[in-house]
Amino acid sequence: MYISIIAYVVGMALYIEGALLIVPIICALIYGESIMPFIFTALICFGISFPFTRVKPAVGSLFSKEGFVATGLTWIGLTFTGMLPFLFSGSMTSVYDAVFETVSGYTTTGASILTDVEALPKGVLMWRSFMHWIGGMGILVFMLAIVPFTGGTQMNIMKAESPGPSISKLVPRAADSAKILYQIYTALTVVTALTLIALKMPVFDALCITFGAAGTGGFSVLNSGCSTYTIAQQVVITIAMIAFGVNFNFYFFLFIKRSKLAFKMEEVRWYIAIIAVSIIIITVNVLSHGIYDSPGLALKDAAFHVGSIITTTGYATADLNPWPNLSQGILILLMFIGACAGSTGGGLKVSRVLLLARSYKREIAIALHPDIVKKVHMDGKPVEESVIRNTGAYLFIYLVIFCISVLIVAMDGESWVTTFTAVAATYNNIGPGFDVVGTMGNYSSLSDLSKVVLSLDMLIGRLEIFPIMLLFSGATWRKF
Amino acid sequence: MYISIIAYVVGMALYIEGALLIVPIICALIYGESIMPFIFTALICFGISFPFTRVKPAVGSLFSKEGFVATGLTWIGLTFTGMLPFLFSGSMTSVYDAVFETVSGYTTTGASILTDVEALPKGVLMWRSFMHWIGGMGILVFMLAIVPFTGGTQMNIMKAESPGPSISKLVPRAADSAKILYQIYTALTVVTALTLIALKMPVFDALCITFGAAGTGGFSVLNSGCSTYTIAQQVVITIAMIAFGVNFNFYFFLFIKRSKLAFKMEEVRWYIAIIAVSIIIITVNVLSHGIYDSPGLALKDAAFHVGSIITTTGYATADLNPWPNLSQGILILLMFIGACAGSTGGGLKVSRVLLLARSYKREIAIALHPDIVKKVHMDGKPVEESVIRNTGAYLFIYLVIFCISVLIVAMDGESWVTTFTAVAATYNNIGPGFDVVGTMGNYSSLSDLSKVVLSLDMLIGRLEIFPIMLLFSGATWRKF
Repeated sequence: MYISIIAYVVGMALYIEGALLIVPIICALIYGESIMPFIFTALICFGISFPFTRVKPAVGSLFSKEGFVATGLTWIGLTFTGMLPFLFSGSMTSVYDAVFETVSGYTTTGASILTDVEALPKGVLMWRSFMHWIGGMGILVFMLAIVPFTGGTQMNIMKAESPGPSISKLVPRAADSAKILYQIYTALTVVTALTLIALKMPVFDALCITFGAAGTGGFSVLNSGCSTYTIAQQVVITIAMIAFGVNFNFYFFLFIKRSKLAFKMEEVRWYIAIIAVSIIIITVNVLSHGIYDSPGLALKDAAFHVGSIITTTGYATADLNPWPNLSQGILILLMFIGACAGSTGGGLKVSRVLLLARSYKREIAIALHPDIVKKVHMDGKPVEESVIRNTGAYLFIYLVIFCISVLIVAMDGESWVTTFTAVAATYNNIGPGFDVVGTMGNYSSLSDLSKVVLSLDMLIGRLEIFPIMLLFSGATWRKF
Repeated sequence: MYISIIAYVVGMALYIEGALLIVPIICALIYGESIMPFIFTALICFGISFPFTRVKPAVGSLFSKEGFVATGLTWIGLTFTGMLPFLFSGSMTSVYDAVFETVSGYTTTGASILTDVEALPKGVLMWRSFMHWIGGMGILVFMLAIVPFTGGTQMNIMKAESPGPSISKLVPRAADSAKILYQIYTALTVVTALTLIALKMPVFDALCITFGAAGTGGFSVLNSGCSTYTIAQQVVITIAMIAFGVNFNFYFFLFIKRSKLAFKMEEVRWYIAIIAVSIIIITVNVLSHGIYDSPGLALKDAAFHVGSIITTTGYATADLNPWPNLSQGILILLMFIGACAGSTGGGLKVSRVLLLARSYKREIAIALHPDIVKKVHMDGKPVEESVIRNTGAYLFIYLVIFCISVLIVAMDGESWVTTFTAVAATYNNIGPGFDVVGTMGNYSSLSDLSKVVLSLDMLIGRLEIFPIMLLFSGATWRKF
């Protein structure tokens, strides 16, 4: 284990976090609020990062193991510094609550323990939403884009922080890939924010909502969520959420004028198909149960929540608790499927589901003709067996962590719907679940133990299990 | 596709079913009830089987594909003939109900649509429980034990009908394995029944309860389930259920005096460990919530229900709806884990869970050291990669079928707990779930559509997906 390079990476990430606090500081200045909570936090970030980053370590390359450990530690470090503005500003008094809210921010979950969001200073709200934007594409990927590293280091960090069954670089050099990703990310963010502002949404709301949609986070700045925005604004948010759940390779292909390649991406096609079918079924279902009188409004809310949940954003325009079982069930299922790999969304990812479905189809073929030799294909190319094997193992440990979390949270004695969806909504980085933790509720009433478990679930879900699990594995710390 | 050999296998199974009706006929004669429902059913079985079995087909060997298809069709055939006594005796009037109850019997689920079990004739009740015994070890395995086939045929039928990630023959010849399995099965059944009779349980109850425990079925003959039996009788039932959930290889090793091999079986050790830990947690949990005053009674009921549910039997001595969330959660989790492969129990099987856990551990090792070459081991032997790959794909399709079933049953508008556990309890062949379909409830209030879906789930669960899925796959019927 090369401790020095890990320390350097973690230190550099904290340094960047300190610098990014400029965003809430500007916001606080505009609204005439105290900037001290952010200044203190920034100083602490710089103070911690200073000894770690003073000397760039001699060992140039960071290996697979160090990549996972550095990523896990970075995210834990970001949590314990990122929560400080909540505490320093007096917005929260419980450390458990502050940890929960911060993890929820960085992991782009959007689950909140706040009962009255509007009571918070604007600067703190801006920081809360901006964490979504930072966490969406990943702070380490951002670091790669601006700090020079050798090739192995870059790949092993991207592998650990980026979601999906396998990492595909856009261009040969990982640092260039990271730059392109952030360029696309920033461009889409600017377009969304400007559109919302053009539709007369207040600038503060437009920025916060855009940060949440871009990172697929879901913190809102109004107690009413997104329900008081105009229909046009809600439609734009719907489109934005769905757009940020698309594999960013899609935009890259468009950008380099290979639109044929873009529209042939099987993951994106399935993603759109799942969204379309879900919207249709839910619209018909809620209409037939008399939840809505107007088909247009039913369609708007169905589309909004399908987009919000499959991308694991978690914004809401309606109380979903009265919705019929079938609609609720589809939304819960979408929580697990999640968005595309290579997007800012969470969940299992459409490509993992596709890979698993195809490997099942292969097993059927082998059952019929045991001597057959067959490869699983994706986008016309054969998929390596190691990826399929890894995906099967991933599904298993994913379920094990889910079940253990449900059992612990169940001890709170809340209803099964609350318990099950609280875990599903945090683990898959969505935010709201159903019942007590529904779109019009929050996580404040859960016990501290549950908040710790759900905070861990959010981290494990965002980093796709391995980086956090490896921190707790004896083999990681054993000398080989 | 060799239709003639498939027809021969299905016909032979129906012939055996007709012959086995002698058991309820004797029972009906003893209680002075009409034997005509059984006589008619037997005649129909013989009538259908006659043209199929008149000539043993020339093609000697049945291949993998035909094995799955023959097994799927046999079980569907058994359902539509096995339900006739219910209809002929007037015990049921709805065909949906009769199908549900029969599938529930043969698949050893034990889920019932009856609201008043005691109102049924004894002969019909005996047939209902005897179906558990037939379905437990499998009617085709029984056929293999008594009808001579060539080697390939035997293996491909056993592979399709026997549960578990891979089929391990006890002895080189599959027919001999089938004989030994049925000898062990019969011996354990006789011991259990005699013990219960010695403990003064009425002979009729003792036989029916034993058939249910042996097949891990769970139909009871009293409206009160097993709660009115004495504590000693309940303890014997607990032990019997757990014993029939053990991989039968264990008994075979004991039988051939290789007890060292038996006690080294990792699946059995984990199975016992899971049971022990679950019993301890639930006992403490129900005591601390004041559900029981006496620790002894709490332990007895915890052990009974843990044994009943992990083996997927489904007998009950208590209403579990008031039990605390943690206990309910553990029991729901046990529904999915299920019993050992090579037993009469259902669920995912302990060995599959073990295989998946070990393949996850391997992925962790590979993540740390990408160049490592590692095999997954079981009982000290390396497991073939094809088995691991198949197990991953199995987990996926298992979950997909589960989710689709939940969505359809959700349309009934029952509570989520009812919906979720109804599917979990039928798909894993347990029987009772929670809430409306709980230990003191039944499935009568569900819609016909839900009954059809749950009937299919029972069949798919018992035959471990492939035989039924292949019947619906285009590739099966396509000429290659």
